Amino acid sequence: MLCEQKADLDLFFKAKSVAIYGASATPNSVGQAIIQNFIKPQYTGKVFAVNPKYESVLGVKCYPSLVDIPDPIDMVVCAVPARLTPRVFEDIAEKGVKAAIVISGGFSETGPKGAMLEDEMCIIAHENDIRIIGPNCVGVIDTHTHVDTFFLPEYRCGRPKSSNVANISLVSQSGAFAAAIADWTAELGLGIGKIISLGNKCDVDDDDLLCYLGDDESTQVICYYTEGYDKDKGRVFFETAQYVTKNKPVLVVKSGRGERAKAAASSHTGSLAGSDRIADAAYRQAGIIRADNFEQMFDMAKALAMQPPAKGNRVLMITNGGGLGVMTTDALEAQDLSIPHPSRELEERLTDRLPSYCALGNPIDVVGDTDSNRYDAVFEEAIASGEYDAFVVGMLLQTPSLGMEITNTIANHQRRSGLPFVVVSMGGGFTSKAGQIMELMGVPTYATGEKAALAARALVRYGEIKYSSEFKKITV
Amino acid sequence: MLCEQKADLDLFFKAKSVAIYGASATPNSVGQAIIQNFIKPQYTGKVFAVNPKYESVLGVKCYPSLVDIPDPIDMVVCAVPARLTPRVFEDIAEKGVKAAIVISGGFSETGPKGAMLEDEMCIIAHENDIRIIGPNCVGVIDTHTHVDTFFLPEYRCGRPKSSNVANISLVSQSGAFAAAIADWTAELGLGIGKIISLGNKCDVDDDDLLCYLGDDESTQVICYYTEGYDKDKGRVFFETAQYVTKNKPVLVVKSGRGERAKAAASSHTGSLAGSDRIADAAYRQAGIIRADNFEQMFDMAKALAMQPPAKGNRVLMITNGGGLGVMTTDALEAQDLSIPHPSRELEERLTDRLPSYCALGNPIDVVGDTDSNRYDAVFEEAIASGEYDAFVVGMLLQTPSLGMEITNTIANHQRRSGLPFVVVSMGGGFTSKAGQIMELMGVPTYATGEKAALAARALVRYGEIKYSSEFKKITV
Repeated sequence: MLCEQKADLDLFFKAKSVAIYGASATPNSVGQAIIQNFIKPQYTGKVFAVNPKYESVLGVKCYPSLVDIPDPIDMVVCAVPARLTPRVFEDIAEKGVKAAIVISGGFSETGPKGAMLEDEMCIIAHENDIRIIGPNCVGVIDTHTHVDTFFLPEYRCGRPKSSNVANISLVSQSGAFAAAIADWTAELGLGIGKIISLGNKCDVDDDDLLCYLGDDESTQVICYYTEGYDKDKGRVFFETAQYVTKNKPVLVVKSGRGERAKAAASSHTGSLAGSDRIADAAYRQAGIIRADNFEQMFDMAKALAMQPPAKGNRVLMITNGGGLGVMTTDALEAQDLSIPHPSRELEERLTDRLPSYCALGNPIDVVGDTDSNRYDAVFEEAIASGEYDAFVVGMLLQTPSLGMEITNTIANHQRRSGLPFVVVSMGGGFTSKAGQIMELMGVPTYATGEKAALAARALVRYGEIKYSSEFKKITV
Repeated sequence: MLCEQKADLDLFFKAKSVAIYGASATPNSVGQAIIQNFIKPQYTGKVFAVNPKYESVLGVKCYPSLVDIPDPIDMVVCAVPARLTPRVFEDIAEKGVKAAIVISGGFSETGPKGAMLEDEMCIIAHENDIRIIGPNCVGVIDTHTHVDTFFLPEYRCGRPKSSNVANISLVSQSGAFAAAIADWTAELGLGIGKIISLGNKCDVDDDDLLCYLGDDESTQVICYYTEGYDKDKGRVFFETAQYVTKNKPVLVVKSGRGERAKAAASSHTGSLAGSDRIADAAYRQAGIIRADNFEQMFDMAKALAMQPPAKGNRVLMITNGGGLGVMTTDALEAQDLSIPHPSRELEERLTDRLPSYCALGNPIDVVGDTDSNRYDAVFEEAIASGEYDAFVVGMLLQTPSLGMEITNTIANHQRRSGLPFVVVSMGGGFTSKAGQIMELMGVPTYATGEKAALAARALVRYGEIKYSSEFKKITV
């Protein structure tokens, strides 16, 4: 059984009572920022402050030690100086708490002395079955339970929300990136399930989270940012991934492709980035989809979260802008997708239903004066033909002849056919609004043909991973 | 003399009296949308409607024919059915107008009959020294004079504004893209000078606009979207570019890289896309910087419009996030830039001024708890050392220790040194605001390390084009 540790991690995300060790009355301190998160009304559990210095912090009763708290505690958040953590872990053990997020830095990342402290802490944890996230991290955000240990104030670091359509979870080695991505996805309005910053990974690792998130109902796609793997842990991670990726898409951004970046990664987290080509091969074999950067990762993740994977690689592009058709076809071709011409039979059917000045081919150009009816006709015939596995729909809305009903047309055909659709729509205010509506209906929408092609590629690639031998690949 | 036609084109952008042929009282018609643009108070010239059907259109007096207008006319916008245009051009000739934008479609793009009409129109124009933009186009937007023939209503297609910092002008073969980009850049708040949709290019061509925009004071960077060149015109264009690019950066997106896209381009605008490798070589030789897509083009254009080109290829990255440093270094390396380690002397100076836990190298990581003083110290020493030609500055603002004053620190060092700077700052609301402020100060700001690296690459590449032999290139 590859994924047996799952139950342990529930405490980190579903903690109904949390104790903040190092809670502080000092404004802008880490110990204050964290307690501030847990007294927000959206968090419905109980929060306790621990600090011998105070009677109360932000109105929350403050205990001199964890063991003085009368209630049972699900999780401890530890924000005390590193040298005090072994003492804190003795308390955690005594209290019988089984989950701790150690925010504090000053451990192995600072040198041998810190590494000794980290070892000391971990030994106590291990002996007492306490799981640790961290140290040297910003911890976790769960957008459903509102457990949130990110010590960055909301006016600087927005918090993403969960979506009713589909949610992405992110595991990040870097705390700064975890925060920046929380802030960024909050602004984008992307549905996020959980964000986890792993820090020094003295216990809970990429691998544990792969198992946990693989079974997590509020996570549709799992994303990773990593700078490299420890040799043994890396092996376990890839073995686990081979199993998880059959059920849920896993994406990764791994930095340190170049030599200079590798050196920087090593000085940043001490990771050995290793050969990038070996990493590429390992990802491919494990069914993990690699992205070059965060934008690409979230563009693909959005598609994979919202749409079913493709069962083959034949893509049809429909557009109301010739230039957009050309640009997107370029990008689809660059993504190694098959973009076959409609069969003679399909072409005849389309000729019957479209004005003569529409361009039949792949792309199909229903031209600038179209309303949604021409799209409707193309979808109907092309889906019925069975000639395509995925649809890329160009929708330029600068021209008033194409109204907002196009979003219904697209969503309805997607839903009825069960085939994956992605939309490309370039523009400003009205276009953004239409894109939001499109995504509320579950169809991912992109501002450029390249992004849409990348999304289509991810849906095809994941189909290949998920369906393996049943996947129908037409040679390009 | 390569660029002698300049004076002619002024009429298109600086027209002080415009006649709309085919002005219409029908809501949502092309002929109404255009006149609506010219009666906005921002357009300070005179507008006249021409249509025998009406006495007035939207309160503008309507004349049965152009020759009935008592005032002199600088430019005619023609939005009548194709078959009527030869008649209209006889009027234009009689009235002595020297510039006409032909919005109407139904010409060479529809087949031999339309091509004949186009020829007929062009012969009259040529005999009477009338310059034509179009036919089959959306015409022009000038954000300074507010000449605006885009027949798309503002609620669908936003209009970009000029900026006090720097402006980009775009020439597009595709009208739909011209409109989508107007709408998109309006939303982005990117400074735009002019957008020109060329359509069938029966007269005014890429080449003419290259000359005109090359001399245009309100254009700092010239961008093109093209699907290919006519053989002879292509040669002239590249010859002209060789001259223009010494003074002003020229960027291009040329679609039709792949075989399928080429076929689509041919059916869209009849362009022969030709060999993509030949195009690449021609662009390189002419000093034109090619982008893969619009996002890349505008990311580069923004940097080139705001910053001086680099005089060499040595880039220093400074960051307050290790992961961001790694990712950006990866991207800089992929862009073939030189990212040399600081000299021993510079390193010693920096060691004296930074806390011991900062990571010296390239990137220099001033770490998460930094304020703007550490950046200040790095800029001061690195600029004084003369070891770098360009700076890429990572600025993560999720942590409150780094305040808005960092924007001043960056802008001041940029201004004083005269060296090109680009900023990478990832996040949401506060970060977006800081990015806007940074750009008001003239320093382009990007959401990902990859975009910042692309921008740095553009500044280095344009330095190579502009300074040729004086440019100092360190082998990577």
